[in-house]
Amino acid sequence: MTRLYNDPARFKDDMVEGFLAAYSRYVERVPDTSGVMRAGGPRPGKVSVIVGGGSGHYPAFCGLVGPGLADGAVIGDIFTSPSTQQAYRVGKALDGGAGVLFSYGNYAGDVMNFGLAEQRLRDEGIDCRTVLVTDDIASAPSDKPEKRRGIAGDFVVFKVAGAAAERGDSIDEVERLARKANDLTRTIGVAFAGCTFPGKDEPLFRVDPTKMELGLGIHGEPGVRTTDRLSAAELAGELVSALLAERPDGADGRAAVILNGLGATKYEELFVLWKDVVPRLREAGVELILPEVGELVTSLDMAGCSLTICWLDDELTPLWEAPADTPAFRRGSVSSAFSTGAGASTGSATSTAAVRAARERQAERRVEEASPQSREVAATVRRALDRMLEVIRENEARLGEIDAIAGDGDHGRGMVRGLTAACGAANNSTLGAGQTLRAAGEAWADSGGGSSGVLWGALLQAIGRVIGDQEVPDARTVVAALREATDAVTRLGGANVGDKTLLDALVPFVTTLDERVAAGEALGAAWRRAAEEATAAAERTRELVPKVGRARPLADKSVGNPDPGAVSLALCLTAVGEVLSGGEQA
Amino acid sequence: MTRLYNDPARFKDDMVEGFLAAYSRYVERVPDTSGVMRAGGPRPGKVSVIVGGGSGHYPAFCGLVGPGLADGAVIGDIFTSPSTQQAYRVGKALDGGAGVLFSYGNYAGDVMNFGLAEQRLRDEGIDCRTVLVTDDIASAPSDKPEKRRGIAGDFVVFKVAGAAAERGDSIDEVERLARKANDLTRTIGVAFAGCTFPGKDEPLFRVDPTKMELGLGIHGEPGVRTTDRLSAAELAGELVSALLAERPDGADGRAAVILNGLGATKYEELFVLWKDVVPRLREAGVELILPEVGELVTSLDMAGCSLTICWLDDELTPLWEAPADTPAFRRGSVSSAFSTGAGASTGSATSTAAVRAARERQAERRVEEASPQSREVAATVRRALDRMLEVIRENEARLGEIDAIAGDGDHGRGMVRGLTAACGAANNSTLGAGQTLRAAGEAWADSGGGSSGVLWGALLQAIGRVIGDQEVPDARTVVAALREATDAVTRLGGANVGDKTLLDALVPFVTTLDERVAAGEALGAAWRRAAEEATAAAERTRELVPKVGRARPLADKSVGNPDPGAVSLALCLTAVGEVLSGGEQA
Repeated sequence: MTRLYNDPARFKDDMVEGFLAAYSRYVERVPDTSGVMRAGGPRPGKVSVIVGGGSGHYPAFCGLVGPGLADGAVIGDIFTSPSTQQAYRVGKALDGGAGVLFSYGNYAGDVMNFGLAEQRLRDEGIDCRTVLVTDDIASAPSDKPEKRRGIAGDFVVFKVAGAAAERGDSIDEVERLARKANDLTRTIGVAFAGCTFPGKDEPLFRVDPTKMELGLGIHGEPGVRTTDRLSAAELAGELVSALLAERPDGADGRAAVILNGLGATKYEELFVLWKDVVPRLREAGVELILPEVGELVTSLDMAGCSLTICWLDDELTPLWEAPADTPAFRRGSVSSAFSTGAGASTGSATSTAAVRAARERQAERRVEEASPQSREVAATVRRALDRMLEVIRENEARLGEIDAIAGDGDHGRGMVRGLTAACGAANNSTLGAGQTLRAAGEAWADSGGGSSGVLWGALLQAIGRVIGDQEVPDARTVVAALREATDAVTRLGGANVGDKTLLDALVPFVTTLDERVAAGEALGAAWRRAAEEATAAAERTRELVPKVGRARPLADKSVGNPDPGAVSLALCLTAVGEVLSGGEQA
Repeated sequence: MTRLYNDPARFKDDMVEGFLAAYSRYVERVPDTSGVMRAGGPRPGKVSVIVGGGSGHYPAFCGLVGPGLADGAVIGDIFTSPSTQQAYRVGKALDGGAGVLFSYGNYAGDVMNFGLAEQRLRDEGIDCRTVLVTDDIASAPSDKPEKRRGIAGDFVVFKVAGAAAERGDSIDEVERLARKANDLTRTIGVAFAGCTFPGKDEPLFRVDPTKMELGLGIHGEPGVRTTDRLSAAELAGELVSALLAERPDGADGRAAVILNGLGATKYEELFVLWKDVVPRLREAGVELILPEVGELVTSLDMAGCSLTICWLDDELTPLWEAPADTPAFRRGSVSSAFSTGAGASTGSATSTAAVRAARERQAERRVEEASPQSREVAATVRRALDRMLEVIRENEARLGEIDAIAGDGDHGRGMVRGLTAACGAANNSTLGAGQTLRAAGEAWADSGGGSSGVLWGALLQAIGRVIGDQEVPDARTVVAALREATDAVTRLGGANVGDKTLLDALVPFVTTLDERVAAGEALGAAWRRAAEEATAAAERTRELVPKVGRARPLADKSVGNPDPGAVSLALCLTAVGEVLSGGEQA
């Protein structure tokens, strides 16, 4: 368990501060963020590789910042995606004119927050790209690689991207090589016991002490199967054959192999396992190139390990072998084309035409003035947000309890934090309804990190865009806005109805609202009926199984428990219904 | 707990094999040992720095072998000293003509085994020196630094010695600098929870989960005091002020500082604590030179950490800063005066006159032929050894249980292993009594490692030297031999009567034997009475508290439990008494 902390709520901030104090020879803080970057900041003309995700995985992510590896890391709370704002600011600070590559494991919250940050950076003319890491073969079948999670394979992809950027490759090349490394990387993990959060006495999840969980994710996501505890030799056999089953056509046998400890499974044990891994790989004709045995992507003090193989070729081998010098990983002696600060501009700094065009669009933007009618609608929006905050505050403890059964128990706290930020941003009587909703959405998304903040942020912003700042929206426009919002949430979250998310309440709500409005019912009355339907639908999420690939503990614990995101959405919709009906009645 | 293994008894061997497989680019096996050395073996003309101790502390010790750090590591079983034979062989293999420095933490078993190996190497003309690490301020008061244990300060001393050797310093200089580094290094640790051995379900020791143990040793040795769990800031205050209280006169403030994790206390927590350590050190005028936060000397999956400070000066600073390249620790870029194999001989290769003289003595040695009478006595010695083995086998489980209460539960198994080797070596009818005893003693000491093997080895060898291979020893000679053996064990173990060791049974035995023989009693009868006294004395060790500084768990668990070494000694003495009385009666 985690025992060293002051205020658990400040654990991440204290950790980043201590990390920076220990390794100021490597890293400095990205101003106004909890992110870190190479000492000296971006190198002009060099592609910046930015990695990140929740904390609790050290040396991923901040321990891997330095010459030959990452240029920066965006750091979220424990096992929680950093916010869009954090990712955006780190990307913005590290733009050296040659483009920015985001690379991180494939988790819903990270995909949303980094994705929105990428969009914002591109809108501002920075050539930002993304390579998701999807190495965990246990998390989805081989014909759906895009659904796989990223675990220790993160390290290989970061290493390849970092080495390519260090030698001066263009953003196109860095992206292509990182994507190729990801395509050729496979990992399978095994878990023996869960980790415990700062301030908690109980682990996030438990594994029967007489068993092991093959394929369990690094946040406790469901594994492939539970087996009795295996000997080191038997486990080596299982891990190696699972990886070899996906050996790609054309692989000549060269491979970067990592045996990664998750935290409490120590080096001596890893070496015992490695002894049995090596002959099995050699028998299959695998040639091990600079293998690593140790802790590269951890999960606090979780017990377990994973085996990663990246099939190398003539292009990837020198990038894997290339020097690197970071707080937690060093190899060889780095000589970079990009020395501190005033590095030589190598001519690889290219802004694409699309990016230049975006830069121009950005310059042309102007703020539209809101009509007096829209400002009146904005007052209703503010009342609705305030009422949502009241209701969520009343239900904060209950939402926390629901979330604690299968999650980390902070859903109620996160909703209060996000709504408080939203209400604060909305509190400006010069704004129109659309501007108010967009400001509230931005503030919500930036306030916390994780998925619920960014989803609610997208939801409010989509509604705001449809409603605009001139007309008073009629009931049909409100329905259209809600449909647009549903689409935005679906695109962003990558989930569908039935995956046990807030969509399971949102979609029935919009369907009912649409039917009632089409039947001529007044908006307030239609909304109240639709909110009742959403409440019932949220309750029905008890029967659902969460989607694999989300950062969420063992599936079976979640069954019988409603989805906290769906419950809080239904509470909010009910609160808004009260305000709308009040308006009609008044 | 430790979960990855095949046969727990082969854990160390499997671990070493896996380590060598992973890091063949750095290390190779020292032939006929479980020790490792820099790839390419010793560099002619370079001092070889050899570190070691029990395993379970990775990266200490084998992970620290490479240019700029150690030349080799001697590796014992988990938390158990390597045997004399292992240390000797690694030292012998790594002699590059310029001398060998042994450096390791101050634990009884290591001191005995490395000490005997050093003597043997010197006897053979190799200029071997030793620098004990004694950094743990919790283990003895500041006026008795020689009684302090070595913990994470190991790393600083090894680093300084390794850097000095790498730049071509003479053995005198390397020894002086390593000793100076040790004199200027202080560590204080804190423990939250014990670690679990391979094959065991219960931890080696437990800490009340609501408490922390300040000053607990890395094998669970007693700490300074138990406190309630402290916040990170409070703990930082405790650790820093304990270290600053021993700031040496003349220290100008420069310091190498290490915050070391013991295994399950992870990096994020260490950074949180570090955040609160740094300002407290800076306030006291400490200038941090390349600090390290991470796992350098662990204890399997023990939860806890330690803070180390080495006060640097103009001599030590460049050695601390110097490059190193090992599997687990890398700094800068190593350029060595000693390239692989055929390095330049720098003229620092000096053999002292004493060492040359020893080389000559060694050459002059010859084997003395035993008399027929002594060969008959040797037959009695063999019967005695065989009977001891029978008795210890019968009591193996019981001895294991006694040892498990406060130790690692392998005392019975270790005694059986050692006695089996002793009986095997004694089984040669051409040997005299002294030769038989010496051969048995050597085999016992070399069979296992740990302290009991080396103590029993020294005991038998001392008896053998006094008895010789010509005369039939009378009762007074036997008493003299036992007195000599007691002295050898006392010198080697560094313990006194009352420290809860086998001496607490051995000394009363010899006293009684002496009195009875002096009173004219026959040897067999006197021995039986003396053995009864030893049995009673072993039982009385229940009341004793073990000496601080031994690799042994919490003192309070040991009280009420007899010392397993004293119990097994009494069993052996009783067994010998049966054989001697049988002889008299026949």
